[in-house]
Amino acid sequence: MRQSKMFLKSRKEVPADEVTKNATLLIKAGFVYKEMPGVYAYLPMGIKVIEKIKKIAREEMNAVGGNELIMTILQRKELWQKTDRWNDKNVDVWFKTKLKNDTEVGLAWSHEEPITEMMTQYVSSYRDLPLYVYQFQNKLRNELRSKSGIMRGREFIMKDLYSYTKSQEEHEIFYNQMIQAYLKFYKRVGVGDETFVVAASGGAFTKNISHEFQTITDAGEDIIFVDRKSMTGVNSEVIEDENALAKSGLQKENLEQVKTSEVGNIFSFGSEKSEKLELYFTDSDGQKKPVILGSYGIGITRIMGVLVEKFADEKGLVWPKEVSPFAVHLVSLHKEKGDAVYTEAENIYNELQKENIEILFDDRDGSAGVKLNDADLFGITLQIVVGEKGLANGEIEIKNRKTGEVVKVPKVQIYATIKELWQKAF
Amino acid sequence: MRQSKMFLKSRKEVPADEVTKNATLLIKAGFVYKEMPGVYAYLPMGIKVIEKIKKIAREEMNAVGGNELIMTILQRKELWQKTDRWNDKNVDVWFKTKLKNDTEVGLAWSHEEPITEMMTQYVSSYRDLPLYVYQFQNKLRNELRSKSGIMRGREFIMKDLYSYTKSQEEHEIFYNQMIQAYLKFYKRVGVGDETFVVAASGGAFTKNISHEFQTITDAGEDIIFVDRKSMTGVNSEVIEDENALAKSGLQKENLEQVKTSEVGNIFSFGSEKSEKLELYFTDSDGQKKPVILGSYGIGITRIMGVLVEKFADEKGLVWPKEVSPFAVHLVSLHKEKGDAVYTEAENIYNELQKENIEILFDDRDGSAGVKLNDADLFGITLQIVVGEKGLANGEIEIKNRKTGEVVKVPKVQIYATIKELWQKAF
Repeated sequence: MRQSKMFLKSRKEVPADEVTKNATLLIKAGFVYKEMPGVYAYLPMGIKVIEKIKKIAREEMNAVGGNELIMTILQRKELWQKTDRWNDKNVDVWFKTKLKNDTEVGLAWSHEEPITEMMTQYVSSYRDLPLYVYQFQNKLRNELRSKSGIMRGREFIMKDLYSYTKSQEEHEIFYNQMIQAYLKFYKRVGVGDETFVVAASGGAFTKNISHEFQTITDAGEDIIFVDRKSMTGVNSEVIEDENALAKSGLQKENLEQVKTSEVGNIFSFGSEKSEKLELYFTDSDGQKKPVILGSYGIGITRIMGVLVEKFADEKGLVWPKEVSPFAVHLVSLHKEKGDAVYTEAENIYNELQKENIEILFDDRDGSAGVKLNDADLFGITLQIVVGEKGLANGEIEIKNRKTGEVVKVPKVQIYATIKELWQKAF
Repeated sequence: MRQSKMFLKSRKEVPADEVTKNATLLIKAGFVYKEMPGVYAYLPMGIKVIEKIKKIAREEMNAVGGNELIMTILQRKELWQKTDRWNDKNVDVWFKTKLKNDTEVGLAWSHEEPITEMMTQYVSSYRDLPLYVYQFQNKLRNELRSKSGIMRGREFIMKDLYSYTKSQEEHEIFYNQMIQAYLKFYKRVGVGDETFVVAASGGAFTKNISHEFQTITDAGEDIIFVDRKSMTGVNSEVIEDENALAKSGLQKENLEQVKTSEVGNIFSFGSEKSEKLELYFTDSDGQKKPVILGSYGIGITRIMGVLVEKFADEKGLVWPKEVSPFAVHLVSLHKEKGDAVYTEAENIYNELQKENIEILFDDRDGSAGVKLNDADLFGITLQIVVGEKGLANGEIEIKNRKTGEVVKVPKVQIYATIKELWQKAF
């Protein structure tokens, strides 16, 4: 894509009330626009990152048998009353509004109740189970304060999967598959080395066990204790409780205290919600039983924020390759359109496009300084810089944004070098 | 995809308050679930249709230089006050809610104001223009009544593009490009032959001209008068006004009265909104000027509804090929898993998947009648039916869902026949 045709403009200033590294950098780079605290629009470069994160999540959810659907934002009061979660005392993040006829409706802060109630229309026999459905949907949460940038928004995009199984045993098998699917997801988005599975209930295995996935970041809101060998961890409650620690199977001396951000969580609900929402099935033995429910969430926009907090450096954003908005940022340091530098850059652009490389071509007029600073700020995995000096020597510069390493190659080697550097990039 | 692994279940009954053909059929077929009047969830087959319609829209919007972004659902009161559209008397479809600190916020029924105000941060010079941005976003509209199924929802998905140009001339050039882009879109979704461009203001060319795109349907809410040669039309006001009719350039004797549904609309706003929201730029002559705004909408879920109304027959849904959830529905009429019929169907499934044909494989156990009825109800463009009788004769049946035509071919000719029938399908 030609940068001159893209709606992409870096900004010097950010809104005065913006305090986080993630939103500040994303706004400066023109990836994100702040509509109000906790409410962000995603501009073309931002959407590209979001869509790549979604693609990875979609692939991993499909791989475990997930079916994509999309629930609604407007929700009925009655069904949340059945689980006693309509009350603002029990759920303190509701946005509510009214239909013209004064009927109160809720705005989706979660979808567990609506999706489970919906299933009463589709599940009646053991033959209908197990069933795994997921969506990418906007969630609206009326947070009292909103000071974490895109990491905790009043409006954000979430991937939520729901499992409906016939028994606790069937649930646990799937639940463990989901842990593995989540770990694959974190690996692909670039945080595999520093993401840990933490039993939220302190390691004791109950029907209602849940787990969090925690990634090491300086901006983290949590302190946990991790064992790098098993990539698991415990929270501070567990470490102080000898009994609970023993149950976790981890050795105190192997645990390292780290600051983390939660990047996902998974829950076992047993039959509690199904009973309240009357989701039963007839098993092969003729018995009527409640369906076992699990839910599995990843905040897609939150992941984007964590990646910024974790990898950005003093020059700007740094994207892991699988979520980089483009693979290559080609920067032409031409004096004017049509000169030798521009022509060379355009040739490279055309050639790499033919090879199906996702490439952003900075074909704008302007100073070399502005363009190189923008390229670092945007954080695309690889940069190709075409300038007069290199051209005179018959060389093109290729830079890895994260490591800063630069290699100079003759033009004929560009494609091969890009492929090689891409392989090595994180 | 194996149907046994898909969350897809046809229903005999629909909610008692559902009166439309579109929602009734989509609910029966398991494409859609009704959460409340005017609020529908999209199940896996429904999502596939939606995503195909979006893909076509995306390709056509990108082709005219559109940049995809996504605005927010929560919106600020102040900016709607600037154009006097916060007031419920001026806009009667608002849903509103409150932040914890009692600040009133609106829920997106439209995005013209927020996106235009946002542009004040990015547009200052003629060098920043023209600019074309679009999104697929949920719109929430508090309709008094909601009796059109998915054709007019309280919550629905819209494609909205906004053009920001330097002058009325530049605007009009783009506006005409968009008319062509829209016509390409309608052709691809299958309604090109019966979709007409209608000047909403009655044909007189003013700065604030707007157009509607109207598709002939029995379920149409509008009556218009169309000229099939030019694929344009006029509304009833114009036909009664000789002056206006003369301006439209159409001859009364060539006009045919038809019932239509609106499938898109495009607006010229001139500089009015930009002035109210203070979106100015410095032109190349040094003058400060207001930006010229256009907006261009297509209701994605509405299109889906119109396609159902227009093409469904007494057996169920019928999808034009570019929006069909799968290309082929392979139905195995086996007696039991693993018998000769099932094995043959599975071989066909594997072979066609290798050819990258999007295929839904009905591998379920059950009666032939149920499976064939479901296949007709779902409306996938081509059906392959594998049964005992055909197998004995060495023949496989391939059916075009719309025409009902069946061809019988030996197994080795399936792929070639599918390709040929696909070419011919509408």
